[in-house]
Amino acid sequence: MEKRDGLLVVLSGPSGAGKGTLCRELLRQEPNIQYSVSATTRQPRPAEIEGIHYFFRTKAEFEGMIAKGELLEWAEFCGNYYGTPIFAMEQALSAGKDVILEIETKGALQVKKRIPHGLFIFVAPPSLEALSERIHKRGTEAEEVIAKRLATARQEIKLVTEYDYVVVNDEVPAAVHRLRSILVAEKCRVQRNPFLFKEEHS
Amino acid sequence: MEKRDGLLVVLSGPSGAGKGTLCRELLRQEPNIQYSVSATTRQPRPAEIEGIHYFFRTKAEFEGMIAKGELLEWAEFCGNYYGTPIFAMEQALSAGKDVILEIETKGALQVKKRIPHGLFIFVAPPSLEALSERIHKRGTEAEEVIAKRLATARQEIKLVTEYDYVVVNDEVPAAVHRLRSILVAEKCRVQRNPFLFKEEHS
Repeated sequence: MEKRDGLLVVLSGPSGAGKGTLCRELLRQEPNIQYSVSATTRQPRPAEIEGIHYFFRTKAEFEGMIAKGELLEWAEFCGNYYGTPIFAMEQALSAGKDVILEIETKGALQVKKRIPHGLFIFVAPPSLEALSERIHKRGTEAEEVIAKRLATARQEIKLVTEYDYVVVNDEVPAAVHRLRSILVAEKCRVQRNPFLFKEEHS
Repeated sequence: MEKRDGLLVVLSGPSGAGKGTLCRELLRQEPNIQYSVSATTRQPRPAEIEGIHYFFRTKAEFEGMIAKGELLEWAEFCGNYYGTPIFAMEQALSAGKDVILEIETKGALQVKKRIPHGLFIFVAPPSLEALSERIHKRGTEAEEVIAKRLATARQEIKLVTEYDYVVVNDEVPAAVHRLRSILVAEKCRVQRNPFLFKEEHS
């Protein structure tokens, strides 16, 4: 039987919908999934290991990666670059590992242009009211910041049509169950099984 | 929130792949799924109940249903008609129940023409060798009958490309887990969630 590539799973959605929590829980429950390690130009913190937490690169190296198209997507944040290197991801995928990329919506759409056969999952709050409540409960942000985040979320939710799946994060265990089901189901999709019975047909 | 229709799940595949076993097990594990009740012109057996086991119809009534296009698919077998009435199926689907139809491949393709948004799942044996072993183990059929069944299965397996999913029935619990995952995943598909957040956009 032909060895099968892993799936690239892109988990995205508005900030506050809980995609980080779902991603961590999924990684905990599914040992065959690998987290996509980012490249960055920021300094490593004491416990951080090259290739595990980040790929640490100089600014010149990072700009070289941008120029050579070696990044799936990238952005600048607080004077440092952050991006998703293609090489590590492709290595894991061809070893049959699924790779998960947790990313905001703009980055996700960049990735979709380059890897349309990836699995694009939108993590949504149960409603905008629920999202508003969650942000308020944290109690760390000023009212105008909250209003701005909600306006952004409202725009981001319109992008759901660009995705394959929408997982409403009403309760974490239920949402993780949906994510795991999506992974199992996708591996049963006929288009993802081109080699099935092939040797028996020829 | 808008009430959502159930899914029409069509379980098909070559005879001997085990679709009947998977269907029964799925119905046992998923109380929200309903088995699609067939119509027939054959006489009810003692314990059989109208509308539960079959819809019992006279030959004239059945031919009327054919003429009026009230059957999703039908066939004649041993001098009796058997078919899938649309009315009961649609009733269950609009009540939000999923409906499962276990059917041979020709019937499944007939159904696909009429209900393209149904969920078409092909149940496959792990290999043609495995299918051959299974049929031989039953030990009830002559060698030439077995050879004919295998030749048919080989043709049927080519139809897999017409389906959405392929579930390899290597072990029943694993295959049922895949089927249940497919149902969960399909309900998360963006195209099946047109009403999500709609009221919040308008």
